[in-house]
Amino acid sequence: MEKGEEMRNKQVIFRDYIESTRSPIESDFVINTEKKIHLEVPQGSNGVLVKNLYLSCDPYMYILMKDIKDAYVFTSYTPGSVITGFGVAKVLDSRHPNFKKGDLVWGITGWEEYSLITKLEELFKIEHTDVPLSYYTGILGMPGLTAHFGFHEVCAPKKGEYVFVSAAVGAVGQLVGQFAKLMGCYVVGSAGSQEKVELLKNKFGFDAAFNYKEEHDLDAALKRCFPEGVDIYFDNVGGKMLDAVLLNMRNHGRIALCGMITQYNLLEQVEGVNNLMNLLYKRVRMEGFAAFDYFPFYSKFLESVLPYIREGKIIYVEDVAEGLENAPSAFVGLFSGHNVGKQVVAIAQD
Amino acid sequence: MEKGEEMRNKQVIFRDYIESTRSPIESDFVINTEKKIHLEVPQGSNGVLVKNLYLSCDPYMYILMKDIKDAYVFTSYTPGSVITGFGVAKVLDSRHPNFKKGDLVWGITGWEEYSLITKLEELFKIEHTDVPLSYYTGILGMPGLTAHFGFHEVCAPKKGEYVFVSAAVGAVGQLVGQFAKLMGCYVVGSAGSQEKVELLKNKFGFDAAFNYKEEHDLDAALKRCFPEGVDIYFDNVGGKMLDAVLLNMRNHGRIALCGMITQYNLLEQVEGVNNLMNLLYKRVRMEGFAAFDYFPFYSKFLESVLPYIREGKIIYVEDVAEGLENAPSAFVGLFSGHNVGKQVVAIAQD
Repeated sequence: MEKGEEMRNKQVIFRDYIESTRSPIESDFVINTEKKIHLEVPQGSNGVLVKNLYLSCDPYMYILMKDIKDAYVFTSYTPGSVITGFGVAKVLDSRHPNFKKGDLVWGITGWEEYSLITKLEELFKIEHTDVPLSYYTGILGMPGLTAHFGFHEVCAPKKGEYVFVSAAVGAVGQLVGQFAKLMGCYVVGSAGSQEKVELLKNKFGFDAAFNYKEEHDLDAALKRCFPEGVDIYFDNVGGKMLDAVLLNMRNHGRIALCGMITQYNLLEQVEGVNNLMNLLYKRVRMEGFAAFDYFPFYSKFLESVLPYIREGKIIYVEDVAEGLENAPSAFVGLFSGHNVGKQVVAIAQD
Repeated sequence: MEKGEEMRNKQVIFRDYIESTRSPIESDFVINTEKKIHLEVPQGSNGVLVKNLYLSCDPYMYILMKDIKDAYVFTSYTPGSVITGFGVAKVLDSRHPNFKKGDLVWGITGWEEYSLITKLEELFKIEHTDVPLSYYTGILGMPGLTAHFGFHEVCAPKKGEYVFVSAAVGAVGQLVGQFAKLMGCYVVGSAGSQEKVELLKNKFGFDAAFNYKEEHDLDAALKRCFPEGVDIYFDNVGGKMLDAVLLNMRNHGRIALCGMITQYNLLEQVEGVNNLMNLLYKRVRMEGFAAFDYFPFYSKFLESVLPYIREGKIIYVEDVAEGLENAPSAFVGLFSGHNVGKQVVAIAQD
């Protein structure tokens, strides 16, 4: 490839807004193979032109597929435009002083082979390449920040506390459980298959785990796993599980709200949560948070988590789909729990 | 009265546990005029014998009227026993070194003319009598502690923030609103009658107020009062109001859960709260708390609030019922919003 060369730029296009009451399906996406791109940053722009290597499938993206008028955290996708999301990329050309050709970066990019990135506030240069590059979509990217600050700041854990994590094999959950074990907590996770339950117990070192699909009574399952109750609930699912955990919180417990993936397709008519009185009885704090509030502390986070990876004290499981054309099915699979671990799409080697 | 004299001791007796689905009614209480008491602390006890002057009607007492097996904050009342609650009393006899005859005290006492108090951990000696004694059931007692720490600690207010208080004329709400005004916040209250709305605006200095019974659409009422949204919600009612406020929270808002009086008769089948997703979108903290966690800081609280009372910077409205036999109707009235201000029962002058 030469600078300025015109190349095919395969893209994943967002077809149209979807109704709030259904999950995303593959036909919400269109693969466009017609597009071409000049591999240089146009004059007048101070952006970077990148070749995308890994794309991240994250549940929050589903919210952007709806026509949300309200001033939420993000802005909806535009029908007919390329999907955007976190990814890892290599800089091919730059007109920005912070980035140069050959740099590896992670941040918001497009679901396409090449992207011109002009919003550089949340594009991070990758300094450490002794770990898998794809980790910058997960443990060393947004999900890692989410797990680290969500657990250590929002949950304010203490040694010996009882910690419950839902969607515990997911991009965030597997890390929260391991952070909690490193803190000396007792950790139980829930997941949606026996395979995932085994992973939790045998690979991630959770003290116990259960398959929520096999439990008729979530309250009973929690009472079995936590006879003393729950100090910290790291909530990745919301809904019925949150309601059941509320019945099992201990005094001065903390609930970090992260994701609520089960509710994403029910924005307008979510399942009511009935047991909030327990927040009052048990003097519990429940708090929503967002990883991007912690982006300014990214380097502090890296310092903390990189040694754990290098020393093998934290492991990270990814579910890697190959090829841009498989990105839609990989994304759709998140909502049926198809992925085992962090869902990544590999689209180029370098 | 002489020490040891035998006196009639009129009492309010708890008849029996009530079902969770109804509000308390007067016939849940029985007035007993047959009981007698010797006005001295029995040998072997290190308690105090007091003459009760003011009794406090507090919503939490309703929870104690149910047969709650779970390890909640308090223990249920015993059927056939005297009702207990906060009150102001005068010591007639003491076998405890911290209290002597003639002392004025506030804390947990009985709904009766004279009480032998043996749990002294939460009995406070009244040192300042230049303010109305009844205030120690309200602004200078548990509701005052609740408002002070609930607002200043749990809500962590900043100057200029938008504050909403429900049940804003109540024992706690009227104080929260005034504390918020002293902090330089913009404060709106809701209440259940036009009379109360006028009080909020004209007596307590709220910036605005509305009668929730006259609003068909609580969300619309809140949007009218808070076009910019709500930074702090001090929740005294739970239920539909909480759900509506969730739709109007600003980024990084805080919700202090205090009371949820509307839910007290629906413990098992509470109204579901549907808009919790907003905690996530707006990164809101919602926290239950209880005044008794702050009892160790009572003297610090007094130092802060007494000057405000003396300088007329905070006013306090009480609704005083006269006579022990009127205590049940005064208590029952809390649940229909009958009281205007803190509900007290005066049972003796000194």
